[in-house]
Amino acid sequence: MKELQDRIVADGQVIGNNILKVDAFLNHQIDPEFILRIGGELATRFKQEGVTKVLTVEASGIAVAMAAALVLKVPVVFAKKKQALTQEGDVYSAPVFSYTRKEHLEISVARCFLCPTDVVLIIDDFLAHGEALNGLIALVEQAGAKLAGAGIVIEKQFQHGGDPIRQRGVRIESLAAIERMQPGEVIFASDENELGK
Amino acid sequence: MKELQDRIVADGQVIGNNILKVDAFLNHQIDPEFILRIGGELATRFKQEGVTKVLTVEASGIAVAMAAALVLKVPVVFAKKKQALTQEGDVYSAPVFSYTRKEHLEISVARCFLCPTDVVLIIDDFLAHGEALNGLIALVEQAGAKLAGAGIVIEKQFQHGGDPIRQRGVRIESLAAIERMQPGEVIFASDENELGK
Repeated sequence: MKELQDRIVADGQVIGNNILKVDAFLNHQIDPEFILRIGGELATRFKQEGVTKVLTVEASGIAVAMAAALVLKVPVVFAKKKQALTQEGDVYSAPVFSYTRKEHLEISVARCFLCPTDVVLIIDDFLAHGEALNGLIALVEQAGAKLAGAGIVIEKQFQHGGDPIRQRGVRIESLAAIERMQPGEVIFASDENELGK
Repeated sequence: MKELQDRIVADGQVIGNNILKVDAFLNHQIDPEFILRIGGELATRFKQEGVTKVLTVEASGIAVAMAAALVLKVPVVFAKKKQALTQEGDVYSAPVFSYTRKEHLEISVARCFLCPTDVVLIIDDFLAHGEALNGLIALVEQAGAKLAGAGIVIEKQFQHGGDPIRQRGVRIESLAAIERMQPGEVIFASDENELGK
């Protein structure tokens, strides 16, 4: 998605060779009209799949998931990263390691919000090592629901989290696929141009 | 907002006299069209205030904040509950006690996303003891920005968090104000009818 690539180049911050901060429009500040187009594009790619529910994980995935769900006219469910006291025991849960926070989390969804009859589209902001996506897929599997696939805003291909998941037959659509990064530069997989910042 | 009261009665779960779970449409599963109307209604109430930014805190506030921001055509900034490793030191921060999770949190916003020239509308899903709202107001004050007010989806008036904040002159608009709860019942402040569930 050209508009997203342009926005990453304009407003993203590359820190070292691994970290891309897109706090200006996605992870901290949200440009709502832009996120609506992002979510809409992801929804369009899965429009034929009979999706009944969009699943994401708090917090940065929520805005994009909502945008996709508005187009698909289905509910969003966001997995929680830690059980709150008001959340009862009847949940599907999966361990997730957060490389950003360097901590082990448990993500969970109340059983009543994921049914075996559901066709689930997973939406997330980033795909890097695949930790969050693997956790979300595990929740779908525990529910016995059908997985339509995963719609990702930014995939850091060089961290290879998507590879084993695609090999298992899961369809992953990424709107911006990053082949590699170097200080101040993002190189997208879809073209060989080095888009300087 | 009648539609919200009806939805609380239909899909909310009252646990004891204090806890209202609205996981079915707001806090875990999101009904996107409904949230769009909720956020739109809050935006409308502050339409004359020259709002330049909507501020919320992750995670449940994000969807409503985005809906309000779409109407006001301004960005959303969501405060983070804990500093991630990718978040640098240059933040405004405030302590918040979470009664739901029974833990002390630090909420923070990067300084570059709140400016002295901003007119900020705070949006949150719940107002109970006022902890989150006080924290968000502190962030706005630290930035030297102007506070337009706070738009709240559900206010549990009997926990009185809004009282001292209103006394300080902050305008708070709540779409559903709950006077009291008892097992299985929600009594709204705007009418004296006990709306059984």
